[in-house]
Amino acid sequence: MKVYGDKKSGNCYKIQLLMSFLGLDYEWVDVDILAGEARTAAFSAKNPNCKIPLLELDDGRCLSESNAILNYLAEGSPMLPGDPFFRAQVLQWQFFEQYSHEPYIAVARFINKYLGLPEERRQEYQSRQEGGHKALAVMEQQLLDNDYLVAGQLTIADIALYAYTHVAHEGGFDLIAYPALGAWLQRIEQQPHYVAMG
Amino acid sequence: MKVYGDKKSGNCYKIQLLMSFLGLDYEWVDVDILAGEARTAAFSAKNPNCKIPLLELDDGRCLSESNAILNYLAEGSPMLPGDPFFRAQVLQWQFFEQYSHEPYIAVARFINKYLGLPEERRQEYQSRQEGGHKALAVMEQQLLDNDYLVAGQLTIADIALYAYTHVAHEGGFDLIAYPALGAWLQRIEQQPHYVAMG
Repeated sequence: MKVYGDKKSGNCYKIQLLMSFLGLDYEWVDVDILAGEARTAAFSAKNPNCKIPLLELDDGRCLSESNAILNYLAEGSPMLPGDPFFRAQVLQWQFFEQYSHEPYIAVARFINKYLGLPEERRQEYQSRQEGGHKALAVMEQQLLDNDYLVAGQLTIADIALYAYTHVAHEGGFDLIAYPALGAWLQRIEQQPHYVAMG
Repeated sequence: MKVYGDKKSGNCYKIQLLMSFLGLDYEWVDVDILAGEARTAAFSAKNPNCKIPLLELDDGRCLSESNAILNYLAEGSPMLPGDPFFRAQVLQWQFFEQYSHEPYIAVARFINKYLGLPEERRQEYQSRQEGGHKALAVMEQQLLDNDYLVAGQLTIADIALYAYTHVAHEGGFDLIAYPALGAWLQRIEQQPHYVAMG
């Protein structure tokens, strides 16, 4: 298997982290998003939506969208429970991540850390703070009574949300107000085969 | 089962449409988003993210996120194939919908149709056009060679993308440039047990 990705991207890191937890072998192919390498003709032939990460199977079939890739790779492992309601809850948290969390926290982080918070993006950066804190508060509420997001065990729901939450401070989000969330980050970082981002 | 939703919302319509295709019985509970009914204490106890649609099972357990609900309800039916790669492709299209399609097309439609395109939202409305057309072009490319998005058959990937695509004109998107997409809309509307939105 090949994974096309950029080490700066939390969406790509999700795949690295799951691969490590599952002990899967794969080849990493660097795609520099800031240099426009996801918009070349060669890459758009693999993913017409021109986004990373992208998983390429040995038979050449390709799969995009980080959370779809997580579900595909985790099938049959403890990272994706068999119970139908738990599986749906994993998806619920992953759709929450892509709609209510990533567009705020990842975008604020990108503008701040990789673009250097230029004056012309400052208003956009500020506009992402409220939504990001709302998402973090929803997670905090769930984690007050639960060690993990779904089924009391580490799943690909946690991996999906961990990716950008653990670097949320790089987008200006102070996690001090979310103690249960902070304990959950540590719980994930203490797992065997955990790998850091980058 | 109960479905909490608003008939104005394409995300809620996805559930209505799948329920009809599958012949499932359920109770519809109207939640008026414009009146703030998704932000009451009673509703946020069911969904801390205060969004609709919400599925409530007979035992009281709740599930949010329209596409997670689709996956839960469609399990075991022809609307969700058993093949692992096809299942992952269904998710790929659904995550595409929530990240690259809905935030452009549904938001432009909401501003135009339900808010009446007020002057102070006009710039935001305009800013959604390019992303919406990019998403429609990705769909068009897939549908040039395929009757449906995944596995050559109607699945919950089609239902997820149909919901806001078939009303994209209400957000200012002219679909005349996307003939394969237009034929796909008709193909879905000719299915037995199809129900219109609203």
